[in-house]
Amino acid sequence: MPNVRRPAPTSVPPGRVAPDSLKESHSTGQRVKVWHNPDLLSFSHALPDFTAGKSTPREFLEQCLDAIAARDKRVKAFVTLNLVGARKSADAATKRYESGKPLSPVDGCPIAVKDIIETADMPTGMNSSLFKGWRSKHDAACVFALRCSGAVIIGKTVTTEFAIGRSGPTTNPFDVKRTPGGSSSGSAAAVACGMVPVALGTQTIGSILRPASYCGTIGFKPTAGTLHMGGIHPISATCDHLGIIAGSLEDTWRVASQISLTLGSPGNQFLPGAVPPAPRKPRKLARLYTRGWLELDRETREIFNEVLAALEARGVKIESREHDPELAILEDELDGGVDDGLAIVAYEMKWPYGEYVARFGRQIGPRIRELVSRGYEMTQADYKRLLVNRRRIQSLVQKWSSSCDVFITLAASGPAKLGLSHTGSRTFPAYSSWLGFPAFTLPLMEVDGLPVGIQLLGAGGADAELCAIANWVMRELG
Amino acid sequence: MPNVRRPAPTSVPPGRVAPDSLKESHSTGQRVKVWHNPDLLSFSHALPDFTAGKSTPREFLEQCLDAIAARDKRVKAFVTLNLVGARKSADAATKRYESGKPLSPVDGCPIAVKDIIETADMPTGMNSSLFKGWRSKHDAACVFALRCSGAVIIGKTVTTEFAIGRSGPTTNPFDVKRTPGGSSSGSAAAVACGMVPVALGTQTIGSILRPASYCGTIGFKPTAGTLHMGGIHPISATCDHLGIIAGSLEDTWRVASQISLTLGSPGNQFLPGAVPPAPRKPRKLARLYTRGWLELDRETREIFNEVLAALEARGVKIESREHDPELAILEDELDGGVDDGLAIVAYEMKWPYGEYVARFGRQIGPRIRELVSRGYEMTQADYKRLLVNRRRIQSLVQKWSSSCDVFITLAASGPAKLGLSHTGSRTFPAYSSWLGFPAFTLPLMEVDGLPVGIQLLGAGGADAELCAIANWVMRELG
Repeated sequence: MPNVRRPAPTSVPPGRVAPDSLKESHSTGQRVKVWHNPDLLSFSHALPDFTAGKSTPREFLEQCLDAIAARDKRVKAFVTLNLVGARKSADAATKRYESGKPLSPVDGCPIAVKDIIETADMPTGMNSSLFKGWRSKHDAACVFALRCSGAVIIGKTVTTEFAIGRSGPTTNPFDVKRTPGGSSSGSAAAVACGMVPVALGTQTIGSILRPASYCGTIGFKPTAGTLHMGGIHPISATCDHLGIIAGSLEDTWRVASQISLTLGSPGNQFLPGAVPPAPRKPRKLARLYTRGWLELDRETREIFNEVLAALEARGVKIESREHDPELAILEDELDGGVDDGLAIVAYEMKWPYGEYVARFGRQIGPRIRELVSRGYEMTQADYKRLLVNRRRIQSLVQKWSSSCDVFITLAASGPAKLGLSHTGSRTFPAYSSWLGFPAFTLPLMEVDGLPVGIQLLGAGGADAELCAIANWVMRELG
Repeated sequence: MPNVRRPAPTSVPPGRVAPDSLKESHSTGQRVKVWHNPDLLSFSHALPDFTAGKSTPREFLEQCLDAIAARDKRVKAFVTLNLVGARKSADAATKRYESGKPLSPVDGCPIAVKDIIETADMPTGMNSSLFKGWRSKHDAACVFALRCSGAVIIGKTVTTEFAIGRSGPTTNPFDVKRTPGGSSSGSAAAVACGMVPVALGTQTIGSILRPASYCGTIGFKPTAGTLHMGGIHPISATCDHLGIIAGSLEDTWRVASQISLTLGSPGNQFLPGAVPPAPRKPRKLARLYTRGWLELDRETREIFNEVLAALEARGVKIESREHDPELAILEDELDGGVDDGLAIVAYEMKWPYGEYVARFGRQIGPRIRELVSRGYEMTQADYKRLLVNRRRIQSLVQKWSSSCDVFITLAASGPAKLGLSHTGSRTFPAYSSWLGFPAFTLPLMEVDGLPVGIQLLGAGGADAELCAIANWVMRELG
């Protein structure tokens, strides 16, 4: 093992965004109460220091491990850590930077992995007694792609049971009595605490966008099928998505595109490039209040409307149902259909959960048992109707998106709620999972001292275009 | 356990097709040298006896187990048997028939499962030292669907290494020195020996159509995605297919549709009904010689042309490249593109085989190592080009199929070759895997005392239409 120095303390540690730069960014235009978390890490920001020899991946890792040591007893983001493996990987990356030959744009990047994603070096427990200590024969495709690229896999993060059932022990980093959101609970909390710059999450209903919102991080759920799903325990074959939770948009894109470019996504698009698409100012955004609006407290509503006003002040046209009857129809269709998403999930969950319930009964939590029962009550004709309706609404959204850049709404129904047993409402994040369309959580709002994310939702396959607009919105308002 | 009688010996055991009925079928029209194997079992033929109380699923199972006891030492079709479990399932099915309440159209049907398809009650070994004795936490989706439907899962059949590498020990049932074909070697051989009426197989290149041809059984590879792929060890995410090998067309369709109807295929069509679509005489069949023609011996060529002549004698128009310049173009496109299939497979094999090779080196056979290397040499642009070209040719075939019912060609390059180390040429069966289109092997030809299958290839999604034509062809020529 090389002689590795720990980083000398500085006012702004490598990879941590200086608070000043954040303050500056909202000195122009209309003011919004912007969420600010100085703990967020950015691997992309630290990278020039690695290249310049001012810091190393090993130092970056130790900073992460310090945050874990300091905060994980309370936050409980991690199930398993592989410290030896992580340090070994970070040292290898350090050597590569020293010799000027990094493996890839994520070489040395510490990454945490949701515990339904298989890892060869750590158990994959699914937060279920059925899989306690279970070891896969291989890394999931995404983990394999990242390891091949030199990324440092730190550990496994808490998921709800099979990413859809009983909640895990993770607490919200900003209030121990509140949920971090789920099911990618540990991934979002770990990023929020600066334990890692990036974590892998999955979303079948709301499991990336919502915890990212409650924990004040970026969340990115790409178009269905864009990131390889191999080695991820299934819930719903047509609604499961792999995605990224991170402290910065740069890291989000960097890691997503690295997974995509290393392995390819079977039969699908690639996400090009290590750097996110350049900021692009949208001409028009379509505001979707949707029925989630009724779930919001007054303050969240007001601040979201301030965000919209701030965008308008910057010359972005905000379309809304009041002024565009076609958007009103589309919003009603979305609202009428979004429960279809859960029905599709219930139908598709018959495998493997029908078998788990039959064999293991009450070892499987009540929510999963209930969904499986619901799946069994459905007929093939029911399922077919749901698929046909989904295709119809996907076409509507695709068509609409040609006249408007993207949709803007909230990523969750206000800030994280009190209590750990419920991971929050699915209403706002569910549209993107049901339709398989790309969406970002951007941690822009602060409500009652807690983060709330706005959501940008794009058309299927337009991930890069959506990211370019997210990049612009973050630059303008973040 | 109920008091179960073994079946009284009769000249035609229950479920076995009487040789006379086969002879009759080619007494009309032009004569073809038709393959005939009296050992083939048909669950569908036995079913009326169960309903009438003349026989039972347990008796049917014992007949299968007798065939295994008599022949499997030599043929080596099975890796694992679960006799206790199978007898218990068969007894439960027997009771249900006795009380007039069978669970489904496959209740009591003995089924063998290729050893890359996960089973909760038996190890899934992939014919690799890496997975020796490995147990999945659940049944694969297809096995789960069949068990729920009352089917009797007898055991696991030999596959080549991970269904694409080194050959297994299975021998051809008609000549111990010849290959049974692969990779679904054990499934085809078990059906051919009357050890089971039906076996599950998979095909990524030629792994159902080819062994079905070499072993003289029906083979059915449905449209990509039609049968649920959950719990099947992956090779290539866009070329892997689950399919059926069986002794009769009735059983083939019955089992495929039961898997489809029980679980649904995520986002895809269902295969309707327990009984195959009624025989439909095609107006026109497009003959594809393809470059596989050059691999054939003279006798196979002659007999295949006799099959075509026999169809023409029955009023079916056979289109061919000599008379239809558009078909000539299509055939050339298919021939030019079919190697793309293997390249796509190589690219998609990077996961999980890239990891297996990196971690386990020469424990992985040379063919897999070679394919993985090839995958690593390809760029994203290469892969993209292959996908674009595949979509183009899929469209060509879909368009062509509107003017012609289906395509007719051979299922393999002549009868099984001598030697067990090579499972045969992929040329004829590869088109359907590459394009994801449905195909049948129909065991109609006899060449040098060995079976050779003809292949019917249809347009994507037209599985039922293809089966209706296969049904007619079997009735007329089988």
